[in-house]
Amino acid sequence: MLEAAMKKAEVLVEALPYIKDFYGKRVLVKYGGAAMQDCDLKEKIMQDIVLMKYVGMHPIVVHGGGPEINAMLEQLGIVSTFIDGQRVTDLKTMEIVEMVLGGKVNKQIVAGLHASGGKAIGISGKDGMLIKARPLQGQAEMGFTGEVESINPMIIETLIENGYIPVIAPIGFDDDFNSYNINADLVAAAIAVAMKADKLVLLTDVPGLLRDPRAPESLISVVRVSELQDYMNRGIINGGMLPKIRCCIEAVTGGVGRTHIIDGRVPHSILLEVFTKEGIGTMFVNE
Amino acid sequence: MLEAAMKKAEVLVEALPYIKDFYGKRVLVKYGGAAMQDCDLKEKIMQDIVLMKYVGMHPIVVHGGGPEINAMLEQLGIVSTFIDGQRVTDLKTMEIVEMVLGGKVNKQIVAGLHASGGKAIGISGKDGMLIKARPLQGQAEMGFTGEVESINPMIIETLIENGYIPVIAPIGFDDDFNSYNINADLVAAAIAVAMKADKLVLLTDVPGLLRDPRAPESLISVVRVSELQDYMNRGIINGGMLPKIRCCIEAVTGGVGRTHIIDGRVPHSILLEVFTKEGIGTMFVNE
Amino acid sequence: MLEAAMKKAEVLVEALPYIKDFYGKRVLVKYGGAAMQDCDLKEKIMQDIVLMKYVGMHPIVVHGGGPEINAMLEQLGIVSTFIDGQRVTDLKTMEIVEMVLGGKVNKQIVAGLHASGGKAIGISGKDGMLIKARPLQGQAEMGFTGEVESINPMIIETLIENGYIPVIAPIGFDDDFNSYNINADLVAAAIAVAMKADKLVLLTDVPGLLRDPRAPESLISVVRVSELQDYMNRGIINGGMLPKIRCCIEAVTGGVGRTHIIDGRVPHSILLEVFTKEGIGTMFVNE
Amino acid sequence: MLEAAMKKAEVLVEALPYIKDFYGKRVLVKYGGAAMQDCDLKEKIMQDIVLMKYVGMHPIVVHGGGPEINAMLEQLGIVSTFIDGQRVTDLKTMEIVEMVLGGKVNKQIVAGLHASGGKAIGISGKDGMLIKARPLQGQAEMGFTGEVESINPMIIETLIENGYIPVIAPIGFDDDFNSYNINADLVAAAIAVAMKADKLVLLTDVPGLLRDPRAPESLISVVRVSELQDYMNRGIINGGMLPKIRCCIEAVTGGVGRTHIIDGRVPHSILLEVFTKEGIGTMFVNE
Amino acid sequence: MLEAAMKKAEVLVEALPYIKDFYGKRVLVKYGGAAMQDCDLKEKIMQDIVLMKYVGMHPIVVHGGGPEINAMLEQLGIVSTFIDGQRVTDLKTMEIVEMVLGGKVNKQIVAGLHASGGKAIGISGKDGMLIKARPLQGQAEMGFTGEVESINPMIIETLIENGYIPVIAPIGFDDDFNSYNINADLVAAAIAVAMKADKLVLLTDVPGLLRDPRAPESLISVVRVSELQDYMNRGIINGGMLPKIRCCIEAVTGGVGRTHIIDGRVPHSILLEVFTKEGIGTMFVNE
Amino acid sequence: MLEAAMKKAEVLVEALPYIKDFYGKRVLVKYGGAAMQDCDLKEKIMQDIVLMKYVGMHPIVVHGGGPEINAMLEQLGIVSTFIDGQRVTDLKTMEIVEMVLGGKVNKQIVAGLHASGGKAIGISGKDGMLIKARPLQGQAEMGFTGEVESINPMIIETLIENGYIPVIAPIGFDDDFNSYNINADLVAAAIAVAMKADKLVLLTDVPGLLRDPRAPESLISVVRVSELQDYMNRGIINGGMLPKIRCCIEAVTGGVGRTHIIDGRVPHSILLEVFTKEGIGTMFVNE
Repeated sequence: MLEAAMKKAEVLVEALPYIKDFYGKRVLVKYGGAAMQDCDLKEKIMQDIVLMKYVGMHPIVVHGGGPEINAMLEQLGIVSTFIDGQRVTDLKTMEIVEMVLGGKVNKQIVAGLHASGGKAIGISGKDGMLIKARPLQGQAEMGFTGEVESINPMIIETLIENGYIPVIAPIGFDDDFNSYNINADLVAAAIAVAMKADKLVLLTDVPGLLRDPRAPESLISVVRVSELQDYMNRGIINGGMLPKIRCCIEAVTGGVGRTHIIDGRVPHSILLEVFTKEGIGTMFVNE
Repeated sequence: MLEAAMKKAEVLVEALPYIKDFYGKRVLVKYGGAAMQDCDLKEKIMQDIVLMKYVGMHPIVVHGGGPEINAMLEQLGIVSTFIDGQRVTDLKTMEIVEMVLGGKVNKQIVAGLHASGGKAIGISGKDGMLIKARPLQGQAEMGFTGEVESINPMIIETLIENGYIPVIAPIGFDDDFNSYNINADLVAAAIAVAMKADKLVLLTDVPGLLRDPRAPESLISVVRVSELQDYMNRGIINGGMLPKIRCCIEAVTGGVGRTHIIDGRVPHSILLEVFTKEGIGTMFVNE
Repeated sequence: MLEAAMKKAEVLVEALPYIKDFYGKRVLVKYGGAAMQDCDLKEKIMQDIVLMKYVGMHPIVVHGGGPEINAMLEQLGIVSTFIDGQRVTDLKTMEIVEMVLGGKVNKQIVAGLHASGGKAIGISGKDGMLIKARPLQGQAEMGFTGEVESINPMIIETLIENGYIPVIAPIGFDDDFNSYNINADLVAAAIAVAMKADKLVLLTDVPGLLRDPRAPESLISVVRVSELQDYMNRGIINGGMLPKIRCCIEAVTGGVGRTHIIDGRVPHSILLEVFTKEGIGTMFVNE
Repeated sequence: MLEAAMKKAEVLVEALPYIKDFYGKRVLVKYGGAAMQDCDLKEKIMQDIVLMKYVGMHPIVVHGGGPEINAMLEQLGIVSTFIDGQRVTDLKTMEIVEMVLGGKVNKQIVAGLHASGGKAIGISGKDGMLIKARPLQGQAEMGFTGEVESINPMIIETLIENGYIPVIAPIGFDDDFNSYNINADLVAAAIAVAMKADKLVLLTDVPGLLRDPRAPESLISVVRVSELQDYMNRGIINGGMLPKIRCCIEAVTGGVGRTHIIDGRVPHSILLEVFTKEGIGTMFVNE
Repeated sequence: MLEAAMKKAEVLVEALPYIKDFYGKRVLVKYGGAAMQDCDLKEKIMQDIVLMKYVGMHPIVVHGGGPEINAMLEQLGIVSTFIDGQRVTDLKTMEIVEMVLGGKVNKQIVAGLHASGGKAIGISGKDGMLIKARPLQGQAEMGFTGEVESINPMIIETLIENGYIPVIAPIGFDDDFNSYNINADLVAAAIAVAMKADKLVLLTDVPGLLRDPRAPESLISVVRVSELQDYMNRGIINGGMLPKIRCCIEAVTGGVGRTHIIDGRVPHSILLEVFTKEGIGTMFVNE
Repeated sequence: MLEAAMKKAEVLVEALPYIKDFYGKRVLVKYGGAAMQDCDLKEKIMQDIVLMKYVGMHPIVVHGGGPEINAMLEQLGIVSTFIDGQRVTDLKTMEIVEMVLGGKVNKQIVAGLHASGGKAIGISGKDGMLIKARPLQGQAEMGFTGEVESINPMIIETLIENGYIPVIAPIGFDDDFNSYNINADLVAAAIAVAMKADKLVLLTDVPGLLRDPRAPESLISVVRVSELQDYMNRGIINGGMLPKIRCCIEAVTGGVGRTHIIDGRVPHSILLEVFTKEGIGTMFVNE
């Protein structure tokens, strides 16, 4: 038994250089996808985020919630139109989206962080006028589907300084205080830039950027911004991944230290990314 | 025109002694009833609360939301049972209650305060582990209808110190992080006591405690705790008002400076209560 | 009665946008003229200033006191010479000036602010070495009539931060710690510039700058610095008003947000200027 | 020359234990009498006080000003009545008293401290509502001659914390904001008690308490409160000294560490008292 | 490889509840014995202490250094007398003791903590007048072998608040600023009590308190203060262990949360004690 | 006796302008040479430094210790080689150097400052990673004789802000945490530059820079950097003084306000330098 304990001690000590490097750093975690549906994965992600907080980092969570929204819309018999994979959000739908994201998913994450020993506050982008939004540009017919106009990170700073983990639902507001449904990846990138985060981690349902989408071993570990056009020309970046990769590029060129797409389906994927030399997934570098 | 302006100036100056008296004071406002349904009344309440903040008070808002909950439950075809006027809350209902209170009503109030020039943060009692709950005592069959076990006011202190108006949905959590639906009056009283608030104001749909419920002019302006039993014996306090009055008594004996039941249907009722010598409604005094 | 109260509430709420705009702003009030002689006007000015403090502004008062000085000199049988409207100040006169301004007028204002519910500290420009003075340039024969050489605003910052309203007598000191009698308008402008005040308000005995001095309705609401020469050429600005207007220009070109000449004879004139869209008097703009 | 310098160094070093002992201590100096009339003595007192500030003490100055008041009253042809050595202060006289103390004497001391390298602020007991007064008890006919009702030391704390030496004119105010002329010794003792001063030093025109008033060598160095009655019975304490000694007793029984009556006519008397083992004058001890 | 990484992640997460419990806690580590001689053990202890700091605890190190002192005394040909296992310390010896402990051992530990990524400051009990000493009571012939008279923990507070790990050599000083050699266990206990530490850990060369000294499996995990006399009567506590156990008792009755004797020869023994449910060694409880 | 006391008071007052000028200033004192060997001189230096602290300066002490090192090496029979006046430091010697400087000399100075009433902390350049070192450039055969690579003054800032006098042994560390013996003058200059000290004072065994080394009256009071080459050409600066003068030049061109070489053999030499208009020794000016 003592030997087993000593092995555990060794593991803790191995993490020491990473803990040291990330002390006081701000890490923005976009939480979504499978990692949000599977109970076990979810618990592990919560533990990872709480651990990050305890060892001195400042994790900030932005979450999505598509499946929960769909389920509720379905129960209410509301049918949505989608254009280019984005939901057209009419007023009735927006009300449901806001309710589900801000009142259900957001609070579940808060409870999950508390259950793992953390101290969290769940807000939406309307609280503290955090996310100023506007309708998705050039696509007036999208209704209350919006994009980020500006970020006022004051409330996040307040929460961080007072020891809380901020959990943010991707809802924005406009000049007339209408609500907008914004893609959570976009919100995560915008907040990461506004807060000069040291790291942005997008939890996805793929291992990262793959040369061959069917071959996980073809993972590209590092993508330089300068190589991007080439990857697009060669068709390596396409459809599904394009929006996420755009977010990464925006973040990294906007001053975020490092940006990662990682596989949320891997247990403790965030911890692996943060406390492991190799990391996992694909990292974007501003070169 | 100058004369009109000078009259306005006089009014501002008349408010000066009240502004002075309440400088730095904490005022808990339970917001609910008609004042929440009528758009015009709602806007006026928002203005009142923002004004209080600007002249140096610290308003804290706890809100209800029964009608919105009912509407959503109805849309979803969920039928509730009520025992003694309290909803029996099963898991499915609780999910809807939490979503409507925390995701819709709460954020509407936040937006309203922003529209009036304030700076607000909407949270539920799960955020920052604000409201520890337990099932309503002695009534196990009430499901997730709960009562306050304890209040951890740290997050409210943080928000107040940083210039925000906290807006609180009356949702609690238990040891297993289940959610509980708690009466908003009870929550308001418990938070007022925990924060040693200087004032608790319950917005209701009656003018206050009336000797004769049909005669508004029979309003009792001040109720001493010592007179209470007498009022009950004489049937002046009964059914509908009893729970609210119990909240007031709990607050005032728990150390809250002054506790008021006022008529939320009167425009700017809070301002009248705070900035007027006579005040409105019924005040409870710990004598 | 309730209706009257509700009207008052409406007025308070109307002031909200102005209160919001001026929150945390520094407003320098030069107090003098008729507003200082008339008891009723005086009380109203005191109320205005205290109200400004309570709703989050930082008023700073600089006062004159010519009539009181004259009265005391007369009682003592001291006769003064005046050159270009400025008193020639010999040592004996200076002693009286300092005593009357710093010991009488200054403390009366402090008491007036206290009577209106404020918290004030009265100092002269010698305290905390606030106003470094020199003899009025090119006019050696003026004795201890001086002008501002430099401002050390540290004591004002200290008082403001600790919740006090600073009340300042326009007395300066030179390298040998001689006292100087300085025009209060000049002092107000210099302190406003040194403190990067957001507003300078000169209380005068005229409605503002008039196209026709006999016609109050010919008031010029806004004067651009660039138009000034033209006004002077046309004789609109002349004799009596020239020094005051020079102060305004100095302040506005020195970085003070807005500078106003208002009519101190109008009750609550400061409040009207600050909390009214139209304002009163003449505003100087650095354009 | 080097030897002379080395001797000076020795003197500085000798002061070290006293500097250490008094570091951070609050010393209330009642400044008055001959030390205020003689220019050379005055300069030395100013130097002593500034030195105390620089070596880490917090000197607070309360001053009198009888001779200056008399001179001004005389110039104005105002005749005062005295009862038991206290001036009967009518309204006209009070105005002069306040003007002379707050506008002349107070500011001269401030200038003197500045000339010696200090940083001082001169206020009266009306500023910051420092000295609440009431008419001298049981002697209504004394007019505005008052006594201390209560002290609000907040402004003194603010000034001390910000590095200033507070200089206080002994003027109080009542509920109607009337001004009162209060004996400076009384004010000094009251402030010393309110601020829990470590030392109160009254500068007088006698060497201290003498067994034989004609024999300076009969100085009593230490007076225990318990011995007082005996001294009075034996006539050692009488007429002139009684009020000062009462102040000392009040201070020392009110919690002031040590209270001293010293001879202000001795150059650098304060420094001698503070930095010398023997001290000078008479010390009062609460035994 | 991913699996191995995931196992590591699991270990980190297992530590989470302990990290949470000890967040902000003060842990006094007495470092000595074999753990100080063996290079590999030493490195592991350094890592453990640095890790504790990074996960939010405040470790404070007190060290011994007997073998190094002996080696240097031997090199210099100085022979020591021992009475009851304590060295008789003459002046010459004291000089060597101080030099070896404060100049060599202390700085080696500091360097070791730096090499593991920490930030440490090495001081002796003379620095900041931390350890006031007196000669070992009733044993005048012990020379400069001393015991703790009082602790002034100010410098430790300063270092902790600024992020440093304090490393303390067990040297004290008396009124004449003579140096004293004090048993490091005694110093550790005294500092733990003075700082109200949450934990005191003595690293020793035994597994803890054993019922049968030859049988490690006879380890007594918890010792209640009330059982102590019984253990002594039964001879379980004797000679070698008695002083250490006295230190533990003093600490635990002096208010230190928990006190432990653990086996410094076990790699990562501190980490095992702190982050393991079972802990290792013997814990003393004030019951 | 009173007269003697009054003369002392005069001396204290004479120091006032210097005390005022140096208030809050940082003064780096290199302590070494005869001033460290002679008991009486030593006590006086300690008094000077403590006095500086009490009158508001921030003295920082860097010390040497050659004679003590030599004595200990001799006792241990270790023979050193010197190249160009610098000791070749092998590992064994380094251990002794570190022990003597950090464990003996350093703590003696700390005790001396405490005996004079100060509050000091003794550290070496390894503590808080204060002095990063490298082998003396281009002279690999010097062993662990090093030079300063960089200074991390954080620990000094912490100590100063908390009221301590830092006492620093000139030991550095490299990337592998080896210890290095560095010339104390070099360390003093490097720390003075890193901390933007206002003054650097090197205590030496000569009166300063002399035109004729045999004639103390040929002292050069001020040396401009621009004159230096000339002094070297003319042989005025040579052998012994060259390294010290290089340190002064480095400091003064590195931003240190004023740099001085003074005669540590003169009692209270630092006080004379700081509190005397003429000063003593040679001052270097960046002109």
